[in-house]
This record gives sequence, structure tokens and C-alpha cells, in this order.
Amino acid sequence: MTTTDAPQTQIVADPDVPLVRITLEFDAPREKVFRAHTDPDLVVQWQGPRDMQARIEHHDCRTGGSYRYVHVQDGVEYGFHGCFHEVRPAELIVQTFTFEGMPDGVALEKLVLAELPGGRTRLVATSLVDSFADRDAFLASGMESGVREGYRRLDALLAG
Amino acid sequence: MTTTDAPQTQIVADPDVPLVRITLEFDAPREKVFRAHTDPDLVVQWQGPRDMQARIEHHDCRTGGSYRYVHVQDGVEYGFHGCFHEVRPAELIVQTFTFEGMPDGVALEKLVLAELPGGRTRLVATSLVDSFADRDAFLASGMESGVREGYRRLDALLAG
Repeated sequence: MTTTDAPQTQIVADPDVPLVRITLEFDAPREKVFRAHTDPDLVVQWQGPRDMQARIEHHDCRTGGSYRYVHVQDGVEYGFHGCFHEVRPAELIVQTFTFEGMPDGVALEKLVLAELPGGRTRLVATSLVDSFADRDAFLASGMESGVREGYRRLDALLAG
Repeated sequence: MTTTDAPQTQIVADPDVPLVRITLEFDAPREKVFRAHTDPDLVVQWQGPRDMQARIEHHDCRTGGSYRYVHVQDGVEYGFHGCFHEVRPAELIVQTFTFEGMPDGVALEKLVLAELPGGRTRLVATSLVDSFADRDAFLASGMESGVREGYRRLDALLAG
């Protein structure tokens, strides 16, 4: 499964392991892309689908920290939480992720930022779970469109 | 790959996903087995191979906490660290794990404790990584014998 749209978001289901790999490029230096992931005041401006209100409960983005945020749609709250395994400035964020509607599901997420010529940045985000069925259900759940919308908003925020 | 020894430690490499599953039973109630995983003063008494000295730097075993410990052999230190994604008393610990000798490797670990008749406990510990090559290298590295020795020491600690 490979699809592409502006800003060139590629979402690939790995054929060998239950992992999703998202690749895209931003017209901004990686320090700025990194900050948009670590500063809760910026994160809240782009994360998730456009039609939901995000509320960040806490977002302690450092090695050994943790986070929880809530998306609100028509008065219904959807909670998400995890811990930050490792944070390397401008380079790498490794974290866990649970959607609280499926409290036994856990993903291991890795965000890697690479410097490109011309002050651009390539972002590669992987999400690993322990079964292909769960990975494919996750892809089928509409997660793709939420991810694409989020990254479109991030792209606009970085351009602003 | 399936092998068994006292205390009936079964270590299985999953055929479908890059995961190792360790199953064993203890002649102790699960609250006690859980405490041996969460209380650093107990953890330090059983974790890891017999011929290494363990030193716990911190072990904040709660949802959103983190840990780091060091194994010392012949003056050489081997560091390990991670964060606790979720801790449910007597039931579940989900955490990340990195051996600092391979700082880019991360495993997502899940420990599940189930009550058995007669005050016994079944422990199922899974460790998920993002490639079969890394999983198999990990199994080939002598990790198995360290795990078996650790669980033998835990068994003795619980009996004491």
C-alpha cells in the first residue's frame, strides 16, 4: 500500500513486519520541524484531523518523559498517551502510543529527521505493533486521512 | 525455536512477527511476582546473569515513569534504559528497552501475569523489535542464558 499527496506524504505498510512507515519532506530546517513536535504550544496547532479540537494534558518531550492528549469531536473525547523512550534534539524521537479506546494496543513509534540540501527536512515516522491484523485494522480505521491532514497543517505552520 | 528448563522457562521466537515470547510459572501469588518486578530493592536481587553485579540507577515503575540500570562484569559497565508505558498493579507492565551498547535498538516489552490455581502465577513476557535480523541476533547473543539465570534467581527469591 503506497499513496502520495501534498506535502508528498507517503504511507507504506511494510511487507515483512507489522509496521507502518510514513515519509515526507518539509521546506523548513530540521530544528524547526523538531520544535513543532516537542513544544506543546506548537504540537496542539497541527496534530490530528482538522475537524477535531486537540487538548494536550501533558507533553514532557524528553528521554524518560511522557504525554497525554485528547481529541474532542462533538463533545466526545478520544484520549491518547505514551512515554518518550528517547529524544535526541533535531534528530530522533522514540515513543510509545496507545489510543485509549483500545487500551491494550500499544505501538512503538520512531521519528527520524534528516537534513536535506536547501534547508529542507525529510521526516520518516514508523509505527510498530505486534500483529499484522492490528496494523491493518489501524490503517483501515481512517488513521491515514488523519495523518495526512495533520501533516498538511504542520506544513502550513512551518511555512507561517 | 523452543527450549525448556527449570523453572520451566519456555523461550519462543514467533514465526510471524519479530517477537520473542517467554513463558514460565512461579509457585507464588501474582502480587508477589509483580512486586519483584517493581520494587528496585527486589529487582536488583534477581535480574540478569549470575556472574554480573547489577546496579539500579533509577527504577520508577509507574505509568509514565522510566528506568536505568547497569550490569558490571570485570569492571566493564553495560547500561540499559527505557520508559514505562503502562503499569497495572499485579497484572501488566508495558515498557521500552535499549541496551546502550546498541543505542539505536529499541524493544517494546510486555509482561503479563495471570493467576493460576494453588496460588501460582503464569508470567508471559514478550519483546518486540522492528526486524527479524535484530530479533535473531538478540537471541543468538546469549540473551537466552541470561534470561534463564535471571528467572532461576527470581524463582529462588520468591521461594525465600
